[in-house]
Amino acid sequence: MDKKITQIKGGVTAARGFQASGIRCGIKKKGEDLALIYSAVPAVGAAVFTTNKVQAAPVKVSGKHIKAKQHRAIVVNSGNANCCTGKRGVTDALKIVSSAACELKVNPEKILIASTGIIGQPLPLKKIVDSIPCLVAGLRSGISAGRQAARAILTTDTRVKEAAVTLNIGGKKITIGGIAKGAGMIAPDMATLLAFITTDACIKKPALFEALKESTANSFNLISVDGDMSTNDSLIVLANGLASNRQIRVESRPVRNRISNRSRAFELFVKGLRFVTTQLAKALVADAEGASKFIEITVKGAKSRKDAKTAALAVANSLLVKTMINGSDPNWGRIAAAVGASAVVLREEKLSIYFGKSAGVKNGAPVSANRDRIKKEVRKKNVVISVDLGMGKAQATVWTSDLSEEYVRINAKYSS
Amino acid sequence: MDKKITQIKGGVTAARGFQASGIRCGIKKKGEDLALIYSAVPAVGAAVFTTNKVQAAPVKVSGKHIKAKQHRAIVVNSGNANCCTGKRGVTDALKIVSSAACELKVNPEKILIASTGIIGQPLPLKKIVDSIPCLVAGLRSGISAGRQAARAILTTDTRVKEAAVTLNIGGKKITIGGIAKGAGMIAPDMATLLAFITTDACIKKPALFEALKESTANSFNLISVDGDMSTNDSLIVLANGLASNRQIRVESRPVRNRISNRSRAFELFVKGLRFVTTQLAKALVADAEGASKFIEITVKGAKSRKDAKTAALAVANSLLVKTMINGSDPNWGRIAAAVGASAVVLREEKLSIYFGKSAGVKNGAPVSANRDRIKKEVRKKNVVISVDLGMGKAQATVWTSDLSEEYVRINAKYSS
Repeated sequence: MDKKITQIKGGVTAARGFQASGIRCGIKKKGEDLALIYSAVPAVGAAVFTTNKVQAAPVKVSGKHIKAKQHRAIVVNSGNANCCTGKRGVTDALKIVSSAACELKVNPEKILIASTGIIGQPLPLKKIVDSIPCLVAGLRSGISAGRQAARAILTTDTRVKEAAVTLNIGGKKITIGGIAKGAGMIAPDMATLLAFITTDACIKKPALFEALKESTANSFNLISVDGDMSTNDSLIVLANGLASNRQIRVESRPVRNRISNRSRAFELFVKGLRFVTTQLAKALVADAEGASKFIEITVKGAKSRKDAKTAALAVANSLLVKTMINGSDPNWGRIAAAVGASAVVLREEKLSIYFGKSAGVKNGAPVSANRDRIKKEVRKKNVVISVDLGMGKAQATVWTSDLSEEYVRINAKYSS
Repeated sequence: MDKKITQIKGGVTAARGFQASGIRCGIKKKGEDLALIYSAVPAVGAAVFTTNKVQAAPVKVSGKHIKAKQHRAIVVNSGNANCCTGKRGVTDALKIVSSAACELKVNPEKILIASTGIIGQPLPLKKIVDSIPCLVAGLRSGISAGRQAARAILTTDTRVKEAAVTLNIGGKKITIGGIAKGAGMIAPDMATLLAFITTDACIKKPALFEALKESTANSFNLISVDGDMSTNDSLIVLANGLASNRQIRVESRPVRNRISNRSRAFELFVKGLRFVTTQLAKALVADAEGASKFIEITVKGAKSRKDAKTAALAVANSLLVKTMINGSDPNWGRIAAAVGASAVVLREEKLSIYFGKSAGVKNGAPVSANRDRIKKEVRKKNVVISVDLGMGKAQATVWTSDLSEEYVRINAKYSS
């Protein structure tokens, strides 16, 4: 970690001026299912949403509202995705937004909304709207309030996911914190996951969006659980400026008649944000449905970064690789098959595959002497796989989980 | 089925002049693991192989040998894929071919070879070569000999896969028969499967290749078990001409100064071949590793055939859809999510999804009245899903299986 970045406890309420609340309104069979994140002062916001062509109603609403200049709150429900719910879905989402806006005494356009849960069933609107006053009344500062919100956004997750850092920009202490939910339907390009990040940094809206895109590309978009992409993915960041730093912009000020590419403040902010999103992304993988192992896959020696990422995700998404890791079986031929089936430039006689530091195959020829060493590596709880394509200098690392009988059990009866 | 096509019993020995043999040489822990298919007279051949960039040694050898004008035999082993075995792999494959050629007293280039099983371990060459005389001595005509070969090519399959038809072309009875193995690592573009087809038709080599490509596109390339593509896929067809029909070509003879596009004989031959490959493809899905259900997915109303196929395969390959069918859970939102995540043209408000004839969602709005009817449909052993994109007139049907805890059990410990 950069010396200027310090990891701290907490999540969405770590930064100055942010409050949160999480309550049970009765959408799920049990547990909290309604959360609110609120900034005491107007904040600028940025978001990335699912690229699925079937988009949930809250994604449609937040997609519009994120264009506003200022934001004040995010309201989130779990237990129901409000997706494939026709025109009623959007009307329902807007009613929740209005209700929260009225209670918080702010313009509805300043409220963002997200949902997660089952697709295709109308929201129990009355339950939610009736609970909004209680949700707003519950807003608190401090770590435990953030944790309540973190808990209320979960579906099949088994634990809350929070991360926060502080960093020093121009002598001012800036805090960035976030929460996330995941568990299943996790694939690159923002598959079923919700993540909400708050910061007290003073930053221009376009710079915040740029930082969010970069952080996402190098964290959430490098994980994969089952290759399924959700209709509800939303990653929202709010920045309220209470740290009183000089406003962060992407570019530096003009220096000797030219503008340097990136300001140092922006670079540092991206690092901090990326640390938070990476922590959350890894936590999602570690808590994936039925996961018993954490798998890190690095592809190096690729012709391009794109090739490296494609190959690494092909390995991460292979059912045969995932089941093999589940069974601690050192059958590296499946990794070779997955890489070979992906659209990357490779030559079999240059291909090497390692578990930890032991090669299963080196330059296309099997290393049978390493079999016992590999067996040991694959039995570990954290399995480290690296593939050397021997074609160039680019590399990429992705994170995934194994595929267990438990995953099938969880997903076979989800809606019943 | 076309009136001119009659389904008959048998497989690779159904057509005149073909013999087969299947024995145990000791590669697998138990059961037959070495097969031979032989034509008493020279045959023309055509083949399609895996498009995986990591190709097994037998694929490399057969890829060259298929260019010869005439072929006499195919030798196949199960239990070891002879893939990622370096230069030794190709030398080993050539030694097996030479040994069979010597015993059959034909030129080695007339012999094709295929392997299936574990990747990355050298072949037990001596066991195989020592067994070749016995394998050749065992060649017989008749259904039971074909079945022996069908059994010897299996790995985790639970039953043999055979199909055969007769058809009448220009007054001559032509027979087409085949065998296949599959079980896991099944994905479009010839994923881990071996299939061998024999026919007594008299057909030009280019026409045979054309017919094979067409039949494959509409059968083996429309099935998916786990989305993993193997390094060893090989589909080989041999035609020995013993039916004495007038030689089949792709194009008709010139008629009134123009050449009609396709000859009727060719069209009929393709239909017969496609019937055999479709039967084998469906048998592969029905016997997929751990499969408890057979799933047919039709996407209609697509802008193009390509879109329809892409969307149907996206549904077929979704783990969340597969696990949901395994648990008989009518959670059609996952189908909407899978279609939406695929690269097809769609508008949510035109999307309809059916189980059998009951809509779960129609024009983007859920049909909650059908919930019980859908529940009934999804509990069936054969689940029929159709998706109407409402964007055009193209359609495609694909076949797949559910994903069960049993699949995970089989694949977690494959090599151990």
